[in-house]
Amino acid sequence: MTVTDQIPLPRGFRVAGVACGIKSDPGKLDLALFVSETPCAAAGVFTQNLVHGAPVKVSRERVPAATARAVVINSGNSNACTGERGMDDAERMTELVAAELGCESQSVLVCSTGVIGHFLPFEKIAAGIPQVAAQLQPESASLVQAAQAIMTTDTFHKLATRTIMVGETEVTVTGVAKGAAMIGPNMATMLSVIMTDAALSPETTDAMLRHAVDRSFNCISVEGHTSTSDTVILLANAAAGGAMDETAGDALQQAFDEVAAELAQLIIRDAEGADHIITIDVAGLATREDAFRIAKTVADSVLVKTAVTGADPNWGRIVSAVGYAGVTLREEDITLRLNDTLLYEQGSPVSYDEAAVSQSMRDNREVHIDLICGSGESAVRYWTSDLTAEYVRLNSEYTT
Amino acid sequence: MTVTDQIPLPRGFRVAGVACGIKSDPGKLDLALFVSETPCAAAGVFTQNLVHGAPVKVSRERVPAATARAVVINSGNSNACTGERGMDDAERMTELVAAELGCESQSVLVCSTGVIGHFLPFEKIAAGIPQVAAQLQPESASLVQAAQAIMTTDTFHKLATRTIMVGETEVTVTGVAKGAAMIGPNMATMLSVIMTDAALSPETTDAMLRHAVDRSFNCISVEGHTSTSDTVILLANAAAGGAMDETAGDALQQAFDEVAAELAQLIIRDAEGADHIITIDVAGLATREDAFRIAKTVADSVLVKTAVTGADPNWGRIVSAVGYAGVTLREEDITLRLNDTLLYEQGSPVSYDEAAVSQSMRDNREVHIDLICGSGESAVRYWTSDLTAEYVRLNSEYTT
Repeated sequence: MTVTDQIPLPRGFRVAGVACGIKSDPGKLDLALFVSETPCAAAGVFTQNLVHGAPVKVSRERVPAATARAVVINSGNSNACTGERGMDDAERMTELVAAELGCESQSVLVCSTGVIGHFLPFEKIAAGIPQVAAQLQPESASLVQAAQAIMTTDTFHKLATRTIMVGETEVTVTGVAKGAAMIGPNMATMLSVIMTDAALSPETTDAMLRHAVDRSFNCISVEGHTSTSDTVILLANAAAGGAMDETAGDALQQAFDEVAAELAQLIIRDAEGADHIITIDVAGLATREDAFRIAKTVADSVLVKTAVTGADPNWGRIVSAVGYAGVTLREEDITLRLNDTLLYEQGSPVSYDEAAVSQSMRDNREVHIDLICGSGESAVRYWTSDLTAEYVRLNSEYTT
Repeated sequence: MTVTDQIPLPRGFRVAGVACGIKSDPGKLDLALFVSETPCAAAGVFTQNLVHGAPVKVSRERVPAATARAVVINSGNSNACTGERGMDDAERMTELVAAELGCESQSVLVCSTGVIGHFLPFEKIAAGIPQVAAQLQPESASLVQAAQAIMTTDTFHKLATRTIMVGETEVTVTGVAKGAAMIGPNMATMLSVIMTDAALSPETTDAMLRHAVDRSFNCISVEGHTSTSDTVILLANAAAGGAMDETAGDALQQAFDEVAAELAQLIIRDAEGADHIITIDVAGLATREDAFRIAKTVADSVLVKTAVTGADPNWGRIVSAVGYAGVTLREEDITLRLNDTLLYEQGSPVSYDEAAVSQSMRDNREVHIDLICGSGESAVRYWTSDLTAEYVRLNSEYTT
């Protein structure tokens, strides 16, 4: 996976990533800081898991915000399931960052990712925060370091950007994300920070973030396990200047949607042990929720995933997953194409060249499952990965 | 796995299993017949998958019944997703059996299990039905052959029996089952036939079957994929004689519950590629449904399964699965024991000997996850298997 590292930061943001010793390998970056030079609008979308990390509890109370300044993120330890002490630690992280920036701790958001159920090594973080604050820069190289500092089992860092014109004003949207497993979003997912220099109210920031997340991070899964720490934060600091009118809103929403979708797909491309990236299109439903439920059920089926691993066009597993998705539909309305070959049409099997379809699965890392389930107007696109013996090896040997 | 093969049939039943050539290995049994010598009460519980096999559609219409005579089952082909022709084939199977027995085809139930989406090789089945009818016997050896003839990827056949006294009358309950993957029941599961010589009305037969299935086949999963063909049938032919009073009902219900639970656990013991059998107890909920939902979510978590595979007491994965089960609860009410060691108590981690717990997981094929999630009165016991690289290998190489 090649990632372009010449990604511009929006104006008025500075970022950094350092190694403070949370990860066992002392050379690995594990503390990131994202700062707006001026108070900015901020919105967040968080895991719907009732068991969630202390940083989620702390940050959720602080958004939407009109005067946010920073997001501090450590990797290597999720500070989840850590009781009162975990809450104290998360709040102290924001206090230490606020002291460096000269702002209120309420203006600082916090995320942690890594192993669940261990207390943070707080002395290391307390020593690391002045270091990371001292290295803040508005440079692409710093952004790469920040993106690397939030990684856990990721094999590459994840960045995406769009630049659009709003009237005469150039506006930039740039995001980072991490994630390679425990991906099963439910209204929110994984860690991501998206920054823009557009001028937005907290309410608009919140609405635009939710729109983007529903079409990106909420449409991916690796194994359907909703994490305790999923967080996506959008910071908008108005540093681009210029006024936002209604048409600007559409262009900006599209930029947010594209950046979020690109980051979400990068997470799937980094799915642990995956041989194939699976794109699932589901159309013909009465509501987007129905289409989503079918796509997610197919994506989370271990039998569908292992069939793809084996390059087996095993459409029975796909069609039967549609049937237990909990959506009311008729078998006669289901049509399935796999890599553009028709396998199942309106409830009946179709003759097709099984060897050719299998070969196309073997030859391509991308697999396309295309389901039509009726004549409704709603559709969804969802991304997942296959399930390999390597995934099992990674997850039976690594403690998350 | 040792299975006692000296399992008695209830009086008035005859069974047989033959090889008719559906399976590619011509020596493998693939056609079973279960017959009551006299008309009997019959009940069935079927898959809730909206995409279900033609035999499910045919049999579901015929129960509860007062005058059932037989169940015919083929393995090697599920006759699911086969459209009109599949319906015709399923009905013709019951007609051919009815002709052999001299009864109405409405008195014959049918099940098929195996690969989805292929038409039945009907000539082989048409030739096999007279053969299997000719071999019907009331013997244990025939029961073993019938149990073997319904197997697909099972590595052993599955039988269970109980004999109870109802007043002066000895009543026998004997069941067979098959299943090793695509196990994710939703109100019904896998193939099983349970026979008794007790005298029951169709309504009581139905109610007792549902009670037993809710505490057995509905409490297991391998990978959470609800099959298109799951069917459990109970036949009660009154051949034991004697009258049933209310107290007899309790003893009989217990016998059904125990036979069904034993068969369900045999399925989990045969789970494809499994190294560990996991028993999940969930208690302290307001309703049985809530307890069930939590148990099933933990059981279906790929990350929980792979942690068990790796003998890793990774309680964060278990607790976080509880959190996304869709049941309202508080993190502070969750307490977790693994193989009797306390790991997490009322929302906070507990110090424990991680190496010792890991060793106990490595040394035992059985793993016990014990969750208390509040002070409610409802509880459930659920069984599942771990997920190994061998499972992935089997399911990426085998077409179901």
